Amino acid sequence: MVTDFENNTWVINYSLEDYYNRKFSLEEDILLSKSNKTITWVNTYGLEYMDEFRKMVLSNELDDFLLRLLLNQNFGNKVIELEEQLFIAARIIKTENHNLESEQMFFVVAKDFVWCIQEKWGDHFDWIRARIFDNKGIIRKKKADYLLFFILETLISNYKEKYEEMVLMENMLDRATKMEPTPEFMFEVENKKALIQQFKKASHGLRDIVNRLERVEVKGFHTKYFSELREQINGLTNDIDSDTQELESQINLFFSIQGHRLNEVMKTLTIFSVIFIPLTFLAGIYGMNFENIPELKWPYGYFVLLGLMLVVTIISILIFKRKKWF
Amino acid sequence: MVTDFENNTWVINYSLEDYYNRKFSLEEDILLSKSNKTITWVNTYGLEYMDEFRKMVLSNELDDFLLRLLLNQNFGNKVIELEEQLFIAARIIKTENHNLESEQMFFVVAKDFVWCIQEKWGDHFDWIRARIFDNKGIIRKKKADYLLFFILETLISNYKEKYEEMVLMENMLDRATKMEPTPEFMFEVENKKALIQQFKKASHGLRDIVNRLERVEVKGFHTKYFSELREQINGLTNDIDSDTQELESQINLFFSIQGHRLNEVMKTLTIFSVIFIPLTFLAGIYGMNFENIPELKWPYGYFVLLGLMLVVTIISILIFKRKKWF
Amino acid sequence: MVTDFENNTWVINYSLEDYYNRKFSLEEDILLSKSNKTITWVNTYGLEYMDEFRKMVLSNELDDFLLRLLLNQNFGNKVIELEEQLFIAARIIKTENHNLESEQMFFVVAKDFVWCIQEKWGDHFDWIRARIFDNKGIIRKKKADYLLFFILETLISNYKEKYEEMVLMENMLDRATKMEPTPEFMFEVENKKALIQQFKKASHGLRDIVNRLERVEVKGFHTKYFSELREQINGLTNDIDSDTQELESQINLFFSIQGHRLNEVMKTLTIFSVIFIPLTFLAGIYGMNFENIPELKWPYGYFVLLGLMLVVTIISILIFKRKKWF
Amino acid sequence: MVTDFENNTWVINYSLEDYYNRKFSLEEDILLSKSNKTITWVNTYGLEYMDEFRKMVLSNELDDFLLRLLLNQNFGNKVIELEEQLFIAARIIKTENHNLESEQMFFVVAKDFVWCIQEKWGDHFDWIRARIFDNKGIIRKKKADYLLFFILETLISNYKEKYEEMVLMENMLDRATKMEPTPEFMFEVENKKALIQQFKKASHGLRDIVNRLERVEVKGFHTKYFSELREQINGLTNDIDSDTQELESQINLFFSIQGHRLNEVMKTLTIFSVIFIPLTFLAGIYGMNFENIPELKWPYGYFVLLGLMLVVTIISILIFKRKKWF
Amino acid sequence: MVTDFENNTWVINYSLEDYYNRKFSLEEDILLSKSNKTITWVNTYGLEYMDEFRKMVLSNELDDFLLRLLLNQNFGNKVIELEEQLFIAARIIKTENHNLESEQMFFVVAKDFVWCIQEKWGDHFDWIRARIFDNKGIIRKKKADYLLFFILETLISNYKEKYEEMVLMENMLDRATKMEPTPEFMFEVENKKALIQQFKKASHGLRDIVNRLERVEVKGFHTKYFSELREQINGLTNDIDSDTQELESQINLFFSIQGHRLNEVMKTLTIFSVIFIPLTFLAGIYGMNFENIPELKWPYGYFVLLGLMLVVTIISILIFKRKKWF
Ligand SMILES: [Mg+2]
Ligand SMILES: [Mg+2]
Ligand SMILES: [Mg+2]
Ligand SMILES: [Mg+2]
Ligand SMILES: [Mg+2]
Ligand SMILES: [Mg+2]
Ligand SMILES: [Mg+2]
Ligand SMILES: [Mg+2]
Ligand SMILES: [Mg+2]
Ligand SMILES: [Mg+2]
Ligand SMILES: [Mg+2]
Ligand SMILES: [Mg+2]
Ligand SMILES: [Mg+2]
Ligand SMILES: [Mg+2]
Ligand SMILES: [Mg+2]
Ligand SMILES: [Mg+2]
Ligand SMILES: [Mg+2]
Ligand SMILES: [Mg+2]
Ligand SMILES: [Mg+2]
Ligand SMILES: [Mg+2]
Ligand SMILES: [Mg+2]
Ligand SMILES: [Mg+2]
Ligand SMILES: [Mg+2]
Ligand SMILES: [Mg+2]
Ligand SMILES: [Mg+2]
Ligand SMILES: [Mg+2]
Ligand SMILES: [Mg+2]
Ligand SMILES: [Mg+2]
Ligand SMILES: [Mg+2]
Ligand SMILES: [Mg+2]
Ligand SMILES: [Mg+2]
Repeated sequence: MVTDFENNTWVINYSLEDYYNRKFSLEEDILLSKSNKTITWVNTYGLEYMDEFRKMVLSNELDDFLLRLLLNQNFGNKVIELEEQLFIAARIIKTENHNLESEQMFFVVAKDFVWCIQEKWGDHFDWIRARIFDNKGIIRKKKADYLLFFILETLISNYKEKYEEMVLMENMLDRATKMEPTPEFMFEVENKKALIQQFKKASHGLRDIVNRLERVEVKGFHTKYFSELREQINGLTNDIDSDTQELESQINLFFSIQGHRLNEVMKTLTIFSVIFIPLTFLAGIYGMNFENIPELKWPYGYFVLLGLMLVVTIISILIFKRKKWF
Repeated sequence: MVTDFENNTWVINYSLEDYYNRKFSLEEDILLSKSNKTITWVNTYGLEYMDEFRKMVLSNELDDFLLRLLLNQNFGNKVIELEEQLFIAARIIKTENHNLESEQMFFVVAKDFVWCIQEKWGDHFDWIRARIFDNKGIIRKKKADYLLFFILETLISNYKEKYEEMVLMENMLDRATKMEPTPEFMFEVENKKALIQQFKKASHGLRDIVNRLERVEVKGFHTKYFSELREQINGLTNDIDSDTQELESQINLFFSIQGHRLNEVMKTLTIFSVIFIPLTFLAGIYGMNFENIPELKWPYGYFVLLGLMLVVTIISILIFKRKKWF
Repeated sequence: MVTDFENNTWVINYSLEDYYNRKFSLEEDILLSKSNKTITWVNTYGLEYMDEFRKMVLSNELDDFLLRLLLNQNFGNKVIELEEQLFIAARIIKTENHNLESEQMFFVVAKDFVWCIQEKWGDHFDWIRARIFDNKGIIRKKKADYLLFFILETLISNYKEKYEEMVLMENMLDRATKMEPTPEFMFEVENKKALIQQFKKASHGLRDIVNRLERVEVKGFHTKYFSELREQINGLTNDIDSDTQELESQINLFFSIQGHRLNEVMKTLTIFSVIFIPLTFLAGIYGMNFENIPELKWPYGYFVLLGLMLVVTIISILIFKRKKWF
Repeated sequence: MVTDFENNTWVINYSLEDYYNRKFSLEEDILLSKSNKTITWVNTYGLEYMDEFRKMVLSNELDDFLLRLLLNQNFGNKVIELEEQLFIAARIIKTENHNLESEQMFFVVAKDFVWCIQEKWGDHFDWIRARIFDNKGIIRKKKADYLLFFILETLISNYKEKYEEMVLMENMLDRATKMEPTPEFMFEVENKKALIQQFKKASHGLRDIVNRLERVEVKGFHTKYFSELREQINGLTNDIDSDTQELESQINLFFSIQGHRLNEVMKTLTIFSVIFIPLTFLAGIYGMNFENIPELKWPYGYFVLLGLMLVVTIISILIFKRKKWF
Repeated sequence: MVTDFENNTWVINYSLEDYYNRKFSLEEDILLSKSNKTITWVNTYGLEYMDEFRKMVLSNELDDFLLRLLLNQNFGNKVIELEEQLFIAARIIKTENHNLESEQMFFVVAKDFVWCIQEKWGDHFDWIRARIFDNKGIIRKKKADYLLFFILETLISNYKEKYEEMVLMENMLDRATKMEPTPEFMFEVENKKALIQQFKKASHGLRDIVNRLERVEVKGFHTKYFSELREQINGLTNDIDSDTQELESQINLFFSIQGHRLNEVMKTLTIFSVIFIPLTFLAGIYGMNFENIPELKWPYGYFVLLGLMLVVTIISILIFKRKKWF
């Protein structure tokens, strides 16, 4: 009977001369180290097969600390050197859809095998498989350390591509000057910041792993590959930092526009008020019902007052002009 | 007679073959190094037993500098290498209840014993005890350095769990856009920041300890375990940093909303004022009591004025519309 | 004749077996290295005794560069390795009174003596003297490096204590929400920041000294003691950093409250204005003196207008209610 | 037939005694290492010649990993140590025109050749060619490592010159105090920040390359040249940082001016309103039509009221004066 | 004939036994290394003597790379190790007058000479000359490395002194609370920041040089002197950082005062408006000319209304009092 574990596991075995790729069978494929100079790459999708994991660990005489590690499914990012293997836990953001859920991946690596356990279906490793099957490049000449390098490089490249796809910064500063200073714009900016932050966190996670791998001492392992990876991650990190700064610029612009609007609004109100308040007061004066207001009886009193109001208005306007209020 | 110290102290002794767990007795258990390849773990709850501490130090021929160290009960975080022992002081936040009080812990560690002195009752070490009693995993094969690693890992995991429990950041950005920009919201944000800060401080304290432990040179001590711990703390620290940034985003949003509200309020006032001020002025003009105001005698003066007012109003509204004020 | 220098200098000499403590005499005590395995600790209060300093340097065959160093009385923090001595300059804040003046201290240290020159009277070293006289702890077994460690530890502990005494942060966030957003509050916050800054500067000065001492190579000197000191300073530095962040939180709160107040004030003004401006305009209309205003002659014109005003008011209030302005 | 590749490739070969400079020919020049102590410098403009690249790699027995690297044309900044060569990818900003487009450059370097592949036509290396042709300085005595140093130094100097040309900071603070606080000014500031940011990113890219080169271990390579480069980049980086801070100062000034303007506007409005509101109210009182208002019948009621209004006005003005509102 | 170069160059030569100090002569003094254990210090004021520089380089068999370096007169800060000499370029701020112009200095240093080329006349090295001539201290016992140390120390001390002279921070926080929140104050703060920034840049330049000198490997050079210099620079840097923070505090205070003023202004306006708006409305009502307004005919209507207005005013004032608006 084929177990669930076997249904969700594939094995690839290759050497310079040959390779095979097939569904995993607990009977035939359980030995990860073939002791014939071939490299084995096992992929398991799903974390719930603790029984089979135990069988794998025991049959391959792996460090039983591994079982404890596999039980803990919310591991974050970690590199643990076991006796002759390396255990790597990586929290990967899945870039397939736009809500950016994350996936836990585990790698058990020795000099001649990589066992990769992924929380969720699907990965971005098909181009590696193609290189193995078609014997492209040097992968079939190299050991498992090189395969691990390829896997991690794929994760990083994927981050890079998706980051550029999802975080479009072009001409935002331009746009910012045209927009209304509504909280919706700020919300958009802060949301973009949060998105960038997720990539940053994931990149730093991978960087921590890679930094650790550079200092690892497992026999048959060349750490120089991992230096390459660190530089790739640095490239992404630099992009993230500069985009973050651009968002800060937009926030500054936002507040400057908001402040400018307020100034414009208040100037409008003040100019109107300052011009009309004295006029309205004057009209109020001559709307009073005192019996003895001499001006009211002047034949041209009304026109004199209108003239006076005109003069007051013109003076106000000139003063505002001089102060460059409009 | 059983002393208070003995009432608050337990001893666990284990080797690969056997173990025991009992109340501490000053007569039988005072020697911490059993010189028979067993590991001893003593837990004391309470810092006030200086007499017994002195007895312990003298009987075990420990460095008498220890007594001075134990007298100082507000130690913060420290690792001190004594002659053949290690003294560790850690200020731990107690996560049991929500006001996050802190607890001072001391560890006196040598190659074959761990003496743990806690300021307050209760700890999170029961799962370690279970692993010792049930001989799970590799703990009974290992020395006291591995036990210390387990104890510190427990403290870190506990921080992680409680942090995730207490600091819920979900959908805060969303919420922030809907809320009123009252100081209460800002108070809540800053309070959350202070809570995060406490975890950050505690994490940095543990990180300092772990960094120090990695560089320690005590015979029979493997420092590689402590590298693991540093990576775990880094994971927590990263979470804290990204949550802190999210709170900063909320503060920006807050001020943007507050500014936006002010703009809206002032626009409303200005539009109303600008429309009505000239109208009211006109009404004031024709409310004056000059004897000679020709317009007042026009048969349709009133209606002409109403028409003029309508025109002024429409023009004002059109100007505001053009300036996109509403 | 007893010189001023002698009046302001004390000498303590100790070995495991014996000790003495007396006023310094240029005749008897001028040799700092007793060449009999005893440790000498000389304390001079005052920097103005250049003649005697020269005599000391020459008689003890100290590096004459020392004289140049002692001439420069505003040294800041410095560690200079001389041929077989160490010269340490430390700028110490005096915590005795609340204006935090600072004091320059110099230490000339070799393997068997510490000559401490303080700018001002008084120090916190009495507990060290007590330990020497009473032969407490291990100080009389150790060399001058241990004495230097004790002296520096005293300075650091003193900073810690005084910092906690002077910078009370408790419940400030709470208080901040209740206070009026006046510049006085901001002034208080920024003053507290400046106080914290002084402690930070002093701590960093000591940290620089301690870092330097850890890398010093003077014969008969153990640098491990100084690692302890660095960790103690780190503890204080961490406290300072977290208090600084809390002050930043208060500043944010301050501005949020200030902004909120402004919004409240402006809303009040706007609501009142928006409600009354149209009413006042209507009253103005019917206060005009046109001969032909038909409404004025309606028997119930006044009451109709009052009703209309009521309707306009109710509508305004409903609109404000809907926009949640109050 | 001459291929496109050949049309876009030049070769310079030099030794202390002689040199030549000619169009590249795949037949004659394909061997990069001449094995006669001469240094070869090949420049290719354009990245689309994969066939010829393959031919070059195979004929020179270069690491075939190079082909994969050259395929990836969006490489950012990278240094990869191959077997006996060095692969350098640099993302260079082209400073020829003001929109600062960028260009990818690749360098394949061994002890006796530099193969430089540039994405776009034109470079700033002519002065290096002149030094080779005229045998100026020591370049013809040195190996390819020195040529690479010259090439990178040219890129850095070019950045420096163009940075100083494009980012003019002179007297900006002065200007800032005179300008209107419009969003256009802020837009200009933030645009300048974005420009500076591009230079910063490019400088950091080169710095990463240089840092990596300092640690490279390729035979026949002296890494000390690259230390020089790092210091040159640091100089540029320092300028960038200080200009960035100056822009921050301008932003602060901007907001302070904006706030000041608002204060001025609101003060004007408030002073006018506060002075006239009571006066207008008084006028309104005596404009009422009650049959029994005794004051209206006073012979000097009007003048008494005018006097009262004058007194109220003077008092208001005095109060404002005392509060230093104007 | 005496050349311009000779007119602007002085030479000092010293050994423990003797010294001379005279105008430089190209005939007699051209050899910098006297090969008789004396130290030579040449000072040239002016960078325009390329012909003589070439002569100096050739005659002394210095690295001809020096000529290229001297041609580039805008060098910033740099340390270049030549074959047996050291080339140092330092951009020094001239503190003589208050606009802080800068000066390029070059030092060509070997084990027995220092050739110092300064862009502008005048330096602060006279006290070093005095120490040489008077044989004070140990300078005449030491090699050129010690002379270089003295020269650099002079530059640093000069920075320190001038910094303290020019950047007076005393009681600024106090002053800030009393001042008007005008942009002029902000301008002053930002100008002080820019001044501090210049010192910071210059200090960092010297620090880079000193850091580099500590790692230099030139024969006959002791690098320990340069550690001293780094600590002196750190002292200045710390002062700069803390002053910068104080300026930030002032900016916060500024904005808090500005905001407070606005609040005060708006409160004043709002209180006045809210009190008078209803009163003015009531007056408007009874100023209407409807034929039938019963209240107008009440014998005490006017007084009832005045009473009503008083009640409304008192209520308004009580409400404001309760809200603590004044
Ligand atoms: Mg991840
Ligand atoms: Mg994926
Ligand atoms: Mg990069
Ligand atoms: Mg981008
Ligand atoms: Mg911000
Ligand atoms: Mg900002
Ligand atoms: Mg602005
Ligand atoms: Mg706990
Ligand atoms: Mg979270
Ligand atoms: Mg991590
Ligand atoms: Mg985590
Ligand atoms: Mg903020
Ligand atoms: Mg905003
Ligand atoms: Mg003191
Ligand atoms: Mg103190
Ligand atoms: Mg700590
Ligand atoms: Mg505290
Ligand atoms: Mg702030
Ligand atoms: Mg706020
Ligand atoms: Mg360029
Ligand atoms: Mg170019
Ligand atoms: Mg520099
Ligand atoms: Mg500049
Ligand atoms: Mg700022
Ligand atoms: Mg301001
Ligand atoms: Mg100077
Ligand atoms: Mg000078
Ligand atoms: Mg210092
Ligand atoms: Mg100062
Ligand atoms: Mg701030
Ligand atoms: Mg404020």
